[in-house]
This record gives sequence, structure tokens and C-alpha cells, in this order.
Amino acid sequence: MATLVLLRHGESVWNAEGLFTGWVDVDLSAKGEGEATRGGDLLLDADLTPDVVHTSLLKRAIRTAEIALDVADLSWIQVRRSWRLNERHYGALQGKNKAQTREEFGEDQFMTWRRSYDVPPPPIKDDDPLSQVNDLRYASLPSELIPRTECLADVVDRLLPYWYDAVVPDLAAGRTVLVAAHGNSLRALVKHLDGISDDAISALNIPTGIPLLYELDDDFAPLKRGGEYLDPTAAKAAIEAVKNQGASAGKAEAKKGGRRKK
Amino acid sequence: MATLVLLRHGESVWNAEGLFTGWVDVDLSAKGEGEATRGGDLLLDADLTPDVVHTSLLKRAIRTAEIALDVADLSWIQVRRSWRLNERHYGALQGKNKAQTREEFGEDQFMTWRRSYDVPPPPIKDDDPLSQVNDLRYASLPSELIPRTECLADVVDRLLPYWYDAVVPDLAAGRTVLVAAHGNSLRALVKHLDGISDDAISALNIPTGIPLLYELDDDFAPLKRGGEYLDPTAAKAAIEAVKNQGASAGKAEAKKGGRRKK
Repeated sequence: MATLVLLRHGESVWNAEGLFTGWVDVDLSAKGEGEATRGGDLLLDADLTPDVVHTSLLKRAIRTAEIALDVADLSWIQVRRSWRLNERHYGALQGKNKAQTREEFGEDQFMTWRRSYDVPPPPIKDDDPLSQVNDLRYASLPSELIPRTECLADVVDRLLPYWYDAVVPDLAAGRTVLVAAHGNSLRALVKHLDGISDDAISALNIPTGIPLLYELDDDFAPLKRGGEYLDPTAAKAAIEAVKNQGASAGKAEAKKGGRRKK
Repeated sequence: MATLVLLRHGESVWNAEGLFTGWVDVDLSAKGEGEATRGGDLLLDADLTPDVVHTSLLKRAIRTAEIALDVADLSWIQVRRSWRLNERHYGALQGKNKAQTREEFGEDQFMTWRRSYDVPPPPIKDDDPLSQVNDLRYASLPSELIPRTECLADVVDRLLPYWYDAVVPDLAAGRTVLVAAHGNSLRALVKHLDGISDDAISALNIPTGIPLLYELDDDFAPLKRGGEYLDPTAAKAAIEAVKNQGASAGKAEAKKGGRRKK
């Protein structure tokens, strides 16, 4: 049996400002640092001691791991990083205001870009200052491997090689593995682990800063589908809040749409 | 040609309190965090971009690396850690007040423990709360490998396998390597790099938080003996300050000794 712990990074400065972030390397907000601290407290309370942490190359995930592990007195564990754990690339939407984008393109297009499994946003241009083609951290990747936009299906495709080649070998070696990553890279991983369909995955939200524990069998499949949040009450509340947010934002949008038609 | 950057951690809480630390996992003081920040600024100013950081398993070195790399916008580089980069184990002196130890054992014994190449302090007992034999982070080491005390020669012996097997391969692969470690593990490494004699090494001090740059030839030997501090003026001042501190402490001790004899 192997133990896997997933941790979604805390709120970033752009989350707080309502901007699409994707591969832009935005730091945690003060609230996000607090969420990372809570994540560390929960590891400590559960007496969970990862042997190794895997992170993306984005500082909001890296710092979430650093803060949580420091709180849990586990700064010293081994670290591995990969661009394959990065957030979904949001294409030309990176840096755009979410509310304005919804306003400009309408609710349907907005929700398609956010939640459809296989429709990516328009690609970002290579000379866009928010493109990553010239980012030092991806210098060792051939240009064709650096995304210009991604849908969730693309994230699954580029994540799975890292799951099989880097995370599974750690699990197979008996290590408890912590993966500190992002809303969509973790949704991609959970889709794979729990065998969620392309349609059903759109409804899945993973709350920030609450470690999600999976016990895995010898084939690295979950003993319990969906795993177990270390703070199930807080996780449930956070998931409900996201649902309601979506609903009320939708209503607000419908209202606005109504007003615009007058 | 290969590029190696050494960074000694900033002041720890126990440094500030004048206690022997060794393998006890003491955090940085606020001053130490400031030194780590300066280290990151110096990397940035010098346009030095390490591809990988090697740290000890002790949080004062780990956090120094994290802070400096965050300042330099390099949090995303690869990380490797080893107990072989740890500070010298200070044996039964760990946790003891330095001034009281000097008082109790006399200047000669005190300086022998601190600076002789091959005389270790008395070993710590395995049931001492400041022993590391039951520390989770060394759980994968056979007990006989966990030091109970070390002289600098012991540090050289346990450091060199890591230099040859982990750091040199990174350098050979063309990576710029940052090593974030401790006063004595870095003195051990510099002794090896610069071919310093067992006698002469006692006079070498490496200042905290100032990156020390070595350009190495194809045999991983320094092009310039002693390397180059990224802030040579500050490094010189820090080294002088340590020398003067030693001198005045020695004088104070001699005076006290004189008084005790009356």
C-alpha cells in the first residue's frame, strides 16, 4: 500500500484580484500563506510525514509546499519539481480579468473555456509578455513542448508521463509522497486516479490548502474513491462555496445580460 | 569550465544566543533571514543563475536557500539534500553555552574543540535529548553512520563522497551549482577545493550570507584559489570582525582566568 497526499496551493495575488493566472508566476497572497500554514498544521495533526515532495515550477505551489513543510517540521524531505505539474496554461486569457472576460465573451464561452474538457482558450502569442517561451525555467524544453494554451485534456496528457515516471516510482519505493500543485493539474491527476469521465470532471473542485489523502493499492489505484481530506468539514464547506459562487456569479451575469438588452 | 557557488546560512537563533548548535535543527534568527535575503540580492546583482541547489538537512541552511532563491526569482530550480552537507556534529557540547564552556574548560581546551583539525569534542550520549540517533530525518541511515561527535577531519571524510557522487556530476553536466550549507561543512569543502593544509584550515572563516563563487577547471579545481565573494568588501569586513572577536574574547578569558587564580 502506498500513501499519496495532494495539496493545492493557497490563494495567489491574482486569484485575489480575479485574474486568469495559468503559467504566470504569481506569488501567494497573505491569505494564501495562511492556507499553506493550515495545510502544514493538518499534516502535523494527522501525523503524516511525507518522504518526498513533488512541486510544479511555479512559486505559488513551491511556497505552499515550503510553508506547509516548515510548519510540519519537514523542510528537510527530498524535493522534485517538474513543469508537468504546472497549472493549466490559460493561453491568451492569462492576465485577463475573469469578470471582464465573462462580460466580453458571454457566460457560455466563458464556462466552456473554464470547464470544458477539450476546448482550450485562444493561444497566447509568443511575443506576448505573459508567454513562457522565453522563460529561463523552461530553457531546457524544446519550444514545441511549451504550451501556448491548454484544455484539461492537454493537462492530463502532459501530466501522466510525470505521474508514471516520477511519482509512481517514489510510491513503489515505499515513500509517502506529497504533491503540491494547482487546481487543474490536481484535477487531472484525480481524474486519472478515480477514473472520472471527461464529462463528470467539470464538476470536481479541489479546495486550497487542505491536504487530500489517498491510500493506494499495489496498482496505485485508490482504496477509497475520492480519497479523504484531512479536514473534511472545511473541504466540504470550501467546495460548496465554490459551487454557490458559480451559481450567484451566473445569476449576476444573467441579470447584467438582461440589463444590457434593455 | 564549471560554476560553483557556496552560501553559508545566516545567523541562527542559537548563534545569536551563543550556543553550540551542530546537528540541532535551530531556525534562522530575523538577522539570519536578512542575511539570506542579501545573499539572494547578490546572486541577482551578479546575474548568477544556479540550475540546482544542494542543501544540508538542517532548516537554517534550507531556509537560507529558500529565501535567497525566492529573492533571486529562482525558487523553481532543482533541489538536492544530504546529511553529508550538515554542520559539524558538536558532540556533548551541543546546546551548551560557548562562553560558559570556555569558562569551564579553559581557553586551550575550548579552542582545541573549536579549531583543531582532528580532536573532536566528547561524544553525545544516545539518550541525550539533543542526540540525533532517533531523528526521523536520519531514519534511513544505519546507526553507526550517525555522528555522536565530529572534528573537522570527520566532516571532510563524510562530505567528500557527496562532493564526488552528487555535486561533481551536476557540475560535469554543465549545471551551475549552489551549495547552501554551514560554517564547517563549507570549510571542509573549501579545504578540499583549495588544497588547504590541516594546519592552515583553522584560520579560514567563511562569512554568512555572502555567496562565494568558484569557477572550476575540467578537473573541478578552482581557476582562482579561494574563489571570489560576490561582495568582497563585506566579506573582508566580516572575516576581520570574526578575527577581532576571537582576539578580544581570548583577552577577556585570560583576564578572567587571572582573576580566578587569585
